[in-house]
Amino acid sequence: MLQNIRIILCQPSHPGNIGATARAMKNMGLSRLTLVAPQSFPHVEAIQRASGADDILANAKVVQTFEEAIADCQWLFGTSARSREFPWPQLTPFDGAQKVLSFTAMKQEVAIVFGTECSGLTNEQLQRCDYHLTIPTHPSYSSLNLAQAVQILSYEIYQRYLLLSEVPSSHQPVTIDKATMDEVTGLLQHFEEMAIKIGFMHPNHPKKLIPRLKRLFSKAQLEKEEVNILRGFLKLVGKEQT
Amino acid sequence: MLQNIRIILCQPSHPGNIGATARAMKNMGLSRLTLVAPQSFPHVEAIQRASGADDILANAKVVQTFEEAIADCQWLFGTSARSREFPWPQLTPFDGAQKVLSFTAMKQEVAIVFGTECSGLTNEQLQRCDYHLTIPTHPSYSSLNLAQAVQILSYEIYQRYLLLSEVPSSHQPVTIDKATMDEVTGLLQHFEEMAIKIGFMHPNHPKKLIPRLKRLFSKAQLEKEEVNILRGFLKLVGKEQT
Repeated sequence: MLQNIRIILCQPSHPGNIGATARAMKNMGLSRLTLVAPQSFPHVEAIQRASGADDILANAKVVQTFEEAIADCQWLFGTSARSREFPWPQLTPFDGAQKVLSFTAMKQEVAIVFGTECSGLTNEQLQRCDYHLTIPTHPSYSSLNLAQAVQILSYEIYQRYLLLSEVPSSHQPVTIDKATMDEVTGLLQHFEEMAIKIGFMHPNHPKKLIPRLKRLFSKAQLEKEEVNILRGFLKLVGKEQT
Repeated sequence: MLQNIRIILCQPSHPGNIGATARAMKNMGLSRLTLVAPQSFPHVEAIQRASGADDILANAKVVQTFEEAIADCQWLFGTSARSREFPWPQLTPFDGAQKVLSFTAMKQEVAIVFGTECSGLTNEQLQRCDYHLTIPTHPSYSSLNLAQAVQILSYEIYQRYLLLSEVPSSHQPVTIDKATMDEVTGLLQHFEEMAIKIGFMHPNHPKKLIPRLKRLFSKAQLEKEEVNILRGFLKLVGKEQT
């Protein structure tokens, strides 16, 4: 499914951005990179910034024209910072990712296309695209770095992919051994006992101490081991007093 | 709302990553950057990579310790690639962003904390955090670049922010008077002192007591008044022993 997605960078000028793109892709399970007339490639800075993702660089397809890059694609998603002169189906990364995966689910070839660092895709290139993807940014500073834009879109695609496929990822749910209500009640009683013993609480004027502790313990979602620790502490508080 | 959010980078080693972080933040409407003991800052590479976001760098707060950086924060979100030895409330960027904004809606101070490029946050730092944020990545290559991780989280926060600011909310958040990190640190120290005094903890063999308490207090999302209650109790525990 993810293998049907390629990232196309059009005339990238900084090799560092190519490397960072490769890393961003690999982090999110994408592997196919096409470079259209890169200014400097291969380049040591690309390899450095790729970090462990140099296999993506090694397998990158380098072509000279946009036409060559897109020739066998079935769906083109063009990235664009601003709304252009033509109204076009425009998608957020979230909605775009969903659409991308609806196509790859049918084993169709999808490309996400990025323009140059300076001026993005040309109007002509954007007109070739089926959809325009726009990453919502703050109006005061909307110019995203190329590799950062790749990162955001790859991230959204991978998140939607995880939901669809429910494959194991690095994000594992955590199991906790929560204390029973009885155990928490025992802890509260123990605390109350000690509070009276050391003169922190007067039995006839308890104020709101116990309700407050109940709330605190409930917020903490106490686990068995935590109850044991606190009771161990209270036991020694009691021992020293007698 | 976004002004209540700060990004904290702990001991970043590459000035380029600091610059790219500033740019990623500004793209998504964030402006407050704290650097803990950066290896090289200020640095020309940071300015280059910041592109138009050099104001973020100029206003960055540079401190020498993690404690200084978090002292006046009310909520800490720690970023972590892997699940650690302690189970912790763990959130995806999507859910985390929603939680961040639920706190800033109450004008509370939130920090998103990032560890070093090599090894991330230490276990001790993660234990200070209220929540852990994990960006789901492909299992074959889960190491995200620092600035890319900042970009993804800032992006999610800004996307949720855009949605919130569009719809007028009828839902009134409950305000709570959360303790600052400094107040929690004071409580932990007080507890440790008493635990040693009554023989619950041996200073040379503390085992996991303090990390466990850190985690418990963080889960409980302690409020100022709760800290006062617990310290009042501990004060009397101390008094009786002398």
